[in-house]
Amino acid sequence: MKRSPLALVWADRIEGGRKSALLSLHHRLLGKSILELAVEAARNLHPADILAAIDGGGGDEENSPSLPGVCFLTTQKTPGPLGAILSAEDALSGNRTADLIVLDARLSLLGARSLRSLLAAHRRSGNALTLAESLGPLPVQAFRVADLLEALDTLKPVPRDGRGMDRLIERMAERGRKIGTYRLRHPEESLSVRTPAGVSTAIMFLRERKISQLESRGVIVLDPSTTWVDLDARIGKGTVLYPSVVIEGRTRIGTECRIYPFVHLIDAWVGGRVKILSSTVIEKSRIESDAQVGPFARLRPDTLVRSRAKVGNFVEMKNTVFGKHSKAGHLSYLGDAVVGEGVNIGAGTITCNYDGFRKSTTRIDGGAFIGSGTELVAPVRIGRDAYIGAGSVITKNVPPEALAVARGRQVERPGWVRRRRKK
Amino acid sequence: MKRSPLALVWADRIEGGRKSALLSLHHRLLGKSILELAVEAARNLHPADILAAIDGGGGDEENSPSLPGVCFLTTQKTPGPLGAILSAEDALSGNRTADLIVLDARLSLLGARSLRSLLAAHRRSGNALTLAESLGPLPVQAFRVADLLEALDTLKPVPRDGRGMDRLIERMAERGRKIGTYRLRHPEESLSVRTPAGVSTAIMFLRERKISQLESRGVIVLDPSTTWVDLDARIGKGTVLYPSVVIEGRTRIGTECRIYPFVHLIDAWVGGRVKILSSTVIEKSRIESDAQVGPFARLRPDTLVRSRAKVGNFVEMKNTVFGKHSKAGHLSYLGDAVVGEGVNIGAGTITCNYDGFRKSTTRIDGGAFIGSGTELVAPVRIGRDAYIGAGSVITKNVPPEALAVARGRQVERPGWVRRRRKK
Amino acid sequence: MKRSPLALVWADRIEGGRKSALLSLHHRLLGKSILELAVEAARNLHPADILAAIDGGGGDEENSPSLPGVCFLTTQKTPGPLGAILSAEDALSGNRTADLIVLDARLSLLGARSLRSLLAAHRRSGNALTLAESLGPLPVQAFRVADLLEALDTLKPVPRDGRGMDRLIERMAERGRKIGTYRLRHPEESLSVRTPAGVSTAIMFLRERKISQLESRGVIVLDPSTTWVDLDARIGKGTVLYPSVVIEGRTRIGTECRIYPFVHLIDAWVGGRVKILSSTVIEKSRIESDAQVGPFARLRPDTLVRSRAKVGNFVEMKNTVFGKHSKAGHLSYLGDAVVGEGVNIGAGTITCNYDGFRKSTTRIDGGAFIGSGTELVAPVRIGRDAYIGAGSVITKNVPPEALAVARGRQVERPGWVRRRRKK
Repeated sequence: MKRSPLALVWADRIEGGRKSALLSLHHRLLGKSILELAVEAARNLHPADILAAIDGGGGDEENSPSLPGVCFLTTQKTPGPLGAILSAEDALSGNRTADLIVLDARLSLLGARSLRSLLAAHRRSGNALTLAESLGPLPVQAFRVADLLEALDTLKPVPRDGRGMDRLIERMAERGRKIGTYRLRHPEESLSVRTPAGVSTAIMFLRERKISQLESRGVIVLDPSTTWVDLDARIGKGTVLYPSVVIEGRTRIGTECRIYPFVHLIDAWVGGRVKILSSTVIEKSRIESDAQVGPFARLRPDTLVRSRAKVGNFVEMKNTVFGKHSKAGHLSYLGDAVVGEGVNIGAGTITCNYDGFRKSTTRIDGGAFIGSGTELVAPVRIGRDAYIGAGSVITKNVPPEALAVARGRQVERPGWVRRRRKK
Repeated sequence: MKRSPLALVWADRIEGGRKSALLSLHHRLLGKSILELAVEAARNLHPADILAAIDGGGGDEENSPSLPGVCFLTTQKTPGPLGAILSAEDALSGNRTADLIVLDARLSLLGARSLRSLLAAHRRSGNALTLAESLGPLPVQAFRVADLLEALDTLKPVPRDGRGMDRLIERMAERGRKIGTYRLRHPEESLSVRTPAGVSTAIMFLRERKISQLESRGVIVLDPSTTWVDLDARIGKGTVLYPSVVIEGRTRIGTECRIYPFVHLIDAWVGGRVKILSSTVIEKSRIESDAQVGPFARLRPDTLVRSRAKVGNFVEMKNTVFGKHSKAGHLSYLGDAVVGEGVNIGAGTITCNYDGFRKSTTRIDGGAFIGSGTELVAPVRIGRDAYIGAGSVITKNVPPEALAVARGRQVERPGWVRRRRKK
Repeated sequence: MKRSPLALVWADRIEGGRKSALLSLHHRLLGKSILELAVEAARNLHPADILAAIDGGGGDEENSPSLPGVCFLTTQKTPGPLGAILSAEDALSGNRTADLIVLDARLSLLGARSLRSLLAAHRRSGNALTLAESLGPLPVQAFRVADLLEALDTLKPVPRDGRGMDRLIERMAERGRKIGTYRLRHPEESLSVRTPAGVSTAIMFLRERKISQLESRGVIVLDPSTTWVDLDARIGKGTVLYPSVVIEGRTRIGTECRIYPFVHLIDAWVGGRVKILSSTVIEKSRIESDAQVGPFARLRPDTLVRSRAKVGNFVEMKNTVFGKHSKAGHLSYLGDAVVGEGVNIGAGTITCNYDGFRKSTTRIDGGAFIGSGTELVAPVRIGRDAYIGAGSVITKNVPPEALAVARGRQVERPGWVRRRRKK
């Protein structure tokens, strides 16, 4: 069995003579940064090490939990892949018998499969260097490390004019090292993401791949061309995605769900047989099985909607547990609340969780009925099976099974409208 | 004139040796189930009978009002079209002089026109059997019933290995019956919808056809690629559909309407010159001419918005009649309500139609003015031209032209904030 | 240097023998009417005059501010470009040494660049007449005015059978005038927008051009195929447009903004680094830098959201100034309001700006805290740093730093629920 290869991912932040900066490597394509995509492709080679030579440093990503185990190198003034190789020279010299894949970080459509095929072809052929090509030459190389270092030594001092790689290849050829090429199967793999148009093109291809994968696993995607699913999202069999749905981040959706149009999910966790009705936004929240949410609902982070609960239109929840079989059908805000089972939240219910000084919790125990247009001034607790009259402002705890009302008495002035109109 | 043909629609629920079930025939493509689409195509032949041999039975659809007059046969263990023909043997033996079209139910893009052309070609040619083909052979056959039954008899016992149809054709050829082929014009017509990817592909073609049809009838579809209109929906001339609109079911839209982005209509009835502003959801409701609804409105079933009324943002209606020229502009819930003409519903108005025990009706007579933030506790009636002060909880009927107020008195504590901050 | 050309834009409203009217020239393609697009293309020739011969008159557009300086001619009974030339005869006779471009107003994809190339080719070649062609002949001609008028004279009385232009060309040829052709580079430029299908096709191409332009200027358009940006909109570098965004009119968006899915902007002005969260509608309003709006917000005309303010879900504003660092997070309506800096608007706050008779203003001074579920009955002023208790109906001004409360007292009936259930 062959020894594990090394992988070297490189990128120049700023192009040679151009004034404007290239697009940042942090830019996300379907939820993953350009750099993450490159590192992931490299990781699929099961390399002994992943080295990264990022001009200007990897920035925040050096310590990113999404890039574990990547060794960020100090970059050199020599641009391009040759500069990256110089940065990696120390690391390479301890691995002379290994192969090395040198990969431009911006080749975001270069799949793991193609990279593995390149490495396999390189090894099969006995090449010292294998150059990838597609419609034209492509900045991906597979080297035998020993031959690379030998040629590199003859090249020093290394030119900084951007043509050093050409000369390195000349030196290898002069020394009789075998140099071959490997042709990629999919022409789109040669796309280097350097501009906004590159971003949208790369996303288009990544989306097609993701949607095909979902369909092959039994997800019904009614309109692939208007459906957006981030690469890290997972969706269960038999779930139906309606047109114009946007699913971001590490969202998980169970089986047999229905996600209706204009829904936006970000890092949501959704159980089985859940219905999410149109124009609903859910972020960092959990919806248990058989629940129904929306339309026009907005669940902010740390919300848990329990099984068979219903959340209706113009309802916002934040940091709230909403119990089984409970209903909040209309025009309500539940924040920092713990709601038990079988609770009925009337239209226009508001938890007043912030008094201008601090945030407080509202507890609504199981079976309670909250009349419409009620303000619950936290901290406050509504007891089990308690009943709040419509239009109340509740400032004190309500015991179980009690009726509580806090509102003005109705008074009338007959004929007032006629008199007023005469004025 | 030729005798009416017979149509035989068949489908195997489970493929031979495959573990996973095929996609259900109940799955909907632009609002019609796969089975309904097949039956509709068959019905366009004006057949004497439509026979259906659905492995596992037609399920709920056997009694479906959308499949009237279809005769569901008891299926046989022999798979495929031959099994279907065996199921139909009794029915066929009484129609020996007719022609028979045998149609795979999953050919959802096979239009009525192509099926009629196949039948016409079959008859013109004097064939005993005409096989449809497109990019390859296609599971659609036109038979002369007499020749079919004759060949079938010679085949018995019929093999169950899935190759019986091939042998049937051999027998017909051996007996000198004329066998021909008919090539379909549109290659997409050979698509058999058996997988999620098949669903999305079929929908894409059906949508294109539907949008073209709408455009040819004078509907302005600004962005066909993001517009979804179910096959059964009807839209009037001069109506403009903005991008990202989803129109489902038996929706009817009149002439000269404007349907703005992110609108979702399900079985809605919309008159002429209606504006439906962005992000509005309407289900099983009726909007009369010159009304305006949205943005962010949600009309639930059994709502009737009368002519020239306006329903604004974050307003929900359910089982409500909303009178001519009336306005409910903001943040309101009207459920089980009857609202007269020229009524002004202030922001934050809520009909408390459910008291935890039963649902009750709210009546608001013509010309009434409901101040903002009002709860109307049903059953309750607001008289003609009555005026409700803002922030009231109305529990008793209000006479015509009366002013009613039900709220607390304003009290103040000067300097309270300064003292509180010092704490 | 050549003398400025003349431009003659023409359109027949009704086609010869057809019953149904053609699509109106007022119809908008990505925010510009068909007629405006033609005039803009003509204007790019820097013509001495733009003449318009529109059958039935230019209608409202004759006085439109979007068509300044266009000279609308009285039309003739002769149809087509020859009729237009007849209408322009007086204007032409004073410009015999100029060139004339005759342009069908419905060629909405005929870019200014192509028109300039046609004129340049016409001049280079020394033609008396240059005919444009693409896939076939195209209703655009470049004439030398003197030669045109000479041939026109020989033709009189001008035939009205629709074939007059052919005869005019014959006459020019008979007189030995040089006639050439010019082939357009992009076949889509020959599209004449006469039907709904023409509208959607033209829009598709115009959108592609607009999106490409935005991308080339550094805007990140994540999903071009679901993004709609009107031709007159401007967007700053580094701004990210999520999928399914609709941007209309003269919207201006600054740099480094994020516009999330299902957002609809109409004539909005948005500063730098603004976030507009999903499903938000903004019309004729101004959002200053670093503010955040949405999701599910609706800003109606004449709203100004100041820097770093936050407007949250189910919040509507109209004709309102909303101060720096102020927050209105949930379920509120602010209309005809002036809100200072650092104000906290609780959930369910409503300005009662209309009392059924007139509209009035609400003033909320800096630092005030409005408790949830409050109605502010305008005209009313809440003083600096004042504090309104939740659930209040405020009808009188509140002094600075005062606490104001206006609500009912909470009363309870223990065991009420148990007794009620027994009934």
